[in-house]
Amino acid sequence: MGQKVKLSTIADSLGLSTATVSLALRDSPLVADATRERIKEQAQALGYIYNRRAASLRTSRSGIIGVVVHDIMNPFYAEILRAIESELDRNRQTFILSNHYDSVEKQRNFIETLLQLGGDGVIMSPAIGTPKRDIELAEDNGMPAILIARSVDDVPVPTYRGDDAYGIALATNHLIGLGHRCIAMVGGTDQTSTGRHRYQGYVQALQKANIKVDPDLRIPGPRTKQAGFEAAVNFLSLPQKPTAAVCWNDLVAIGLMNGIARAGLVPGQDISVTGYDDLEEASIATPSLTTVWNGQAEVGRMAARALLDKLNGSKDADGLHLIRPEMRIRQSTSPLK
Amino acid sequence: MGQKVKLSTIADSLGLSTATVSLALRDSPLVADATRERIKEQAQALGYIYNRRAASLRTSRSGIIGVVVHDIMNPFYAEILRAIESELDRNRQTFILSNHYDSVEKQRNFIETLLQLGGDGVIMSPAIGTPKRDIELAEDNGMPAILIARSVDDVPVPTYRGDDAYGIALATNHLIGLGHRCIAMVGGTDQTSTGRHRYQGYVQALQKANIKVDPDLRIPGPRTKQAGFEAAVNFLSLPQKPTAAVCWNDLVAIGLMNGIARAGLVPGQDISVTGYDDLEEASIATPSLTTVWNGQAEVGRMAARALLDKLNGSKDADGLHLIRPEMRIRQSTSPLK
Repeated sequence: MGQKVKLSTIADSLGLSTATVSLALRDSPLVADATRERIKEQAQALGYIYNRRAASLRTSRSGIIGVVVHDIMNPFYAEILRAIESELDRNRQTFILSNHYDSVEKQRNFIETLLQLGGDGVIMSPAIGTPKRDIELAEDNGMPAILIARSVDDVPVPTYRGDDAYGIALATNHLIGLGHRCIAMVGGTDQTSTGRHRYQGYVQALQKANIKVDPDLRIPGPRTKQAGFEAAVNFLSLPQKPTAAVCWNDLVAIGLMNGIARAGLVPGQDISVTGYDDLEEASIATPSLTTVWNGQAEVGRMAARALLDKLNGSKDADGLHLIRPEMRIRQSTSPLK
Repeated sequence: MGQKVKLSTIADSLGLSTATVSLALRDSPLVADATRERIKEQAQALGYIYNRRAASLRTSRSGIIGVVVHDIMNPFYAEILRAIESELDRNRQTFILSNHYDSVEKQRNFIETLLQLGGDGVIMSPAIGTPKRDIELAEDNGMPAILIARSVDDVPVPTYRGDDAYGIALATNHLIGLGHRCIAMVGGTDQTSTGRHRYQGYVQALQKANIKVDPDLRIPGPRTKQAGFEAAVNFLSLPQKPTAAVCWNDLVAIGLMNGIARAGLVPGQDISVTGYDDLEEASIATPSLTTVWNGQAEVGRMAARALLDKLNGSKDADGLHLIRPEMRIRQSTSPLK
């Protein structure tokens, strides 16, 4: 490899000061654009590797943003992450992504690692049971936290999520409007704020329509396509014979429709099914999925903006921001036969 | 926030030396387990944040592994990443994930950022057109690279991918065995090694069966569910009226099946469709997808092991390692009517 290229080597070769070279490599606005480009080209030509670890000890920003969610491979989070990525990309931030799989401990390890690396901020969809002090661990050490998709009680940091009770009521009312009376709810859990809000929204919509709420029509648990597929067996053997299902999310709905088809019935005709989220995949499913738009791109964009604002010292974004969901009516729901 | 907790504060409070505390916080095996735990508990109680950035300037390992692929939200890569994560998790490595979206520049920026952070190694599915020197950029700076899913010519680093020509021939032969003669290939591109190998495998299987290869039966491009869905229109209007489709991957196959169903035909009965990868979703699709198992979990596990070996100074894993694909026959293929 030969000897290490130093800042002074670059500076000497261009007839500039070492300080100018150092500022340029840190993208300081004090250096003119043309000069900065010239310095960077020369640095690259000489094989210079800018040591950000050493540099970040001297400057206040590391350029590292952490993002931790239940599972980045879930398309719901993937769509949020894509929006965050696109919003922050031009700021040359480095993302560190991690899954917590709803382990509070895994999530805390991630926050500690971020602090160790000098992370600038963290965007998180908090794990089930996240204590207030784990958010404070980040905040108190000068690393702002932004919450997405789920809330933590009594935490004043910027929080962006859909209005779940309102959204699920849209889906439930749509089915009631089509004449359905025996409507099951498939998936979700009371352990998350999202799960509680969606079940409440479903219950309230039924009550408003004077339909008796039957707790046995709830099949809690499923959150994935595979689990939705497997839940079809339970769903189809319910003694009440539901004619429709309000599903936890699009993945569960698509899985359930596949399970219904596997049992020889036609989803959308024999059984109406609604999803939640309006993933890219919803519109091309068979049948195309009636669902609730949940604003993933909006949540990601606003969370990223809020973090940038916090880093610039603004507290304007603090508090809960609810995205208002919208109904998307397609082929997976039809009037009661 | 109060004043910063120092190593000496922790050491004094426990009656230990600062050196012992420092070693314990870096997980040095020189400190007994019980002592290390006691020190860590005390450090946590005092609110000490271990500064890994400063520490990594003094030690050789940062504990950071970079992973860069086309798109982490593609379930094919997601399944590989899950295996890498599970293999490396117990080594307390921090992952930095990034998408390159087949931009060589975005990929190079990521490698440079990793070098700046002092990354220990990088696992990458190289972007289309990756030059040899971009792999060397990592290697020559002491950061071993491991390639997954795609090769780069003349690069001797450990490379793990499926045997694509063999795998696609399995799918093509399966359809030929069912009596199909007019078989289209949907998706993929000649710009990647994977794309070239799969098209060659398809062509060779047809030639071996004395079936004339018609270049117009190739619909190149699609790699996603959405694109597969849209390709159904082209597929169904081909003048040769293909009775079967060999698809680039499971996503394209599921999208194409949805498109075929949208056109009023029954996939698996009117048109046979094969996928590639055997994603978790393949077995629950409607109809369940006949596909080629491509060993994502194996690729991820072996790539992670190879990186750990490289970090321990072994060169045993250098070179190309081909995973042998296997056929998974389900309901999306049936004998020619």
